[in-house]
Amino acid sequence: MSQAQPAEILRIHLSESDRFRGRQLYEEIVARCRELGIAGATVFRGVAGFGETAEMHRGGIVHGDRPLLVTIVDRAENIARLIPAVAEMMDTGLMAQSAVEMIRVQRAAVKG
Amino acid sequence: MSQAQPAEILRIHLSESDRFRGRQLYEEIVARCRELGIAGATVFRGVAGFGETAEMHRGGIVHGDRPLLVTIVDRAENIARLIPAVAEMMDTGLMAQSAVEMIRVQRAAVKG
Amino acid sequence: MSQAQPAEILRIHLSESDRFRGRQLYEEIVARCRELGIAGATVFRGVAGFGETAEMHRGGIVHGDRPLLVTIVDRAENIARLIPAVAEMMDTGLMAQSAVEMIRVQRAAVKG
Repeated sequence: MSQAQPAEILRIHLSESDRFRGRQLYEEIVARCRELGIAGATVFRGVAGFGETAEMHRGGIVHGDRPLLVTIVDRAENIARLIPAVAEMMDTGLMAQSAVEMIRVQRAAVKG
Repeated sequence: MSQAQPAEILRIHLSESDRFRGRQLYEEIVARCRELGIAGATVFRGVAGFGETAEMHRGGIVHGDRPLLVTIVDRAENIARLIPAVAEMMDTGLMAQSAVEMIRVQRAAVKG
Repeated sequence: MSQAQPAEILRIHLSESDRFRGRQLYEEIVARCRELGIAGATVFRGVAGFGETAEMHRGGIVHGDRPLLVTIVDRAENIARLIPAVAEMMDTGLMAQSAVEMIRVQRAAVKG
């Protein structure tokens, strides 16, 4: 059984070297998502990239400091609560938000 | 030469431990995409994450069981055929669908 | 402080074996993004996949030749300048463009 509902996807761009209170920023963001009751978050590591953070802090393509992307899919009101909380944790950074149709799959009986 | 057309992107969230009939779920989903004539699918492995599957099955952040994301870009009618086929293969899971402009690049002559 | 503005996300699908003038295509695309003043680009390597490039050039699932995804978030006019430049560099390929709300975070004072 699958159910579709309107939702939002939030993409948070940061890098491996970003810290928040001495800890990995991406881990702190994932922990914050859990505290806020966000449905789910996934972190991906890029192989190359550049961006605002890189240009402002290191002036070029990222070397030995891979880009990270945290993606979150949840209802609009939960994303709206999350954005200022994440912005508080970042020095400089980029987020991108857009609408999705969220499809939840749940099986009534457990499959063998 | 490039041509743009309306299409959909489907994101399927699962984890490395998910199985379908004893085989890796993500491989089975990719195989199903090919059977259904889907234009293309790409699988990404995350470095961390949590979600419905994780919370329901393991109660926490994913350890030793990385999140996977399968992304598919195709025309709306093909995505509509794919969603129930994938839902059939998952116990619990999350998909997210949204509209994109698909741009196909094809060169008339082969580049040297 | 965070500011939201309308923007576009461009996803460029290619593979590790793709070359442009004898060099890695993805590196050339990232370099072209910088030349064109694009705000940022991130490259992700997939673990599996198939697509137009794979089917046309190798007839199947990618083996020993991983799929790559370059994602770019920028204002619509910058994405519009980038697309034909990237199309020029590809033999065959797929791009997908969609609208996002871009949220830039900038802190007035540097965090300790």
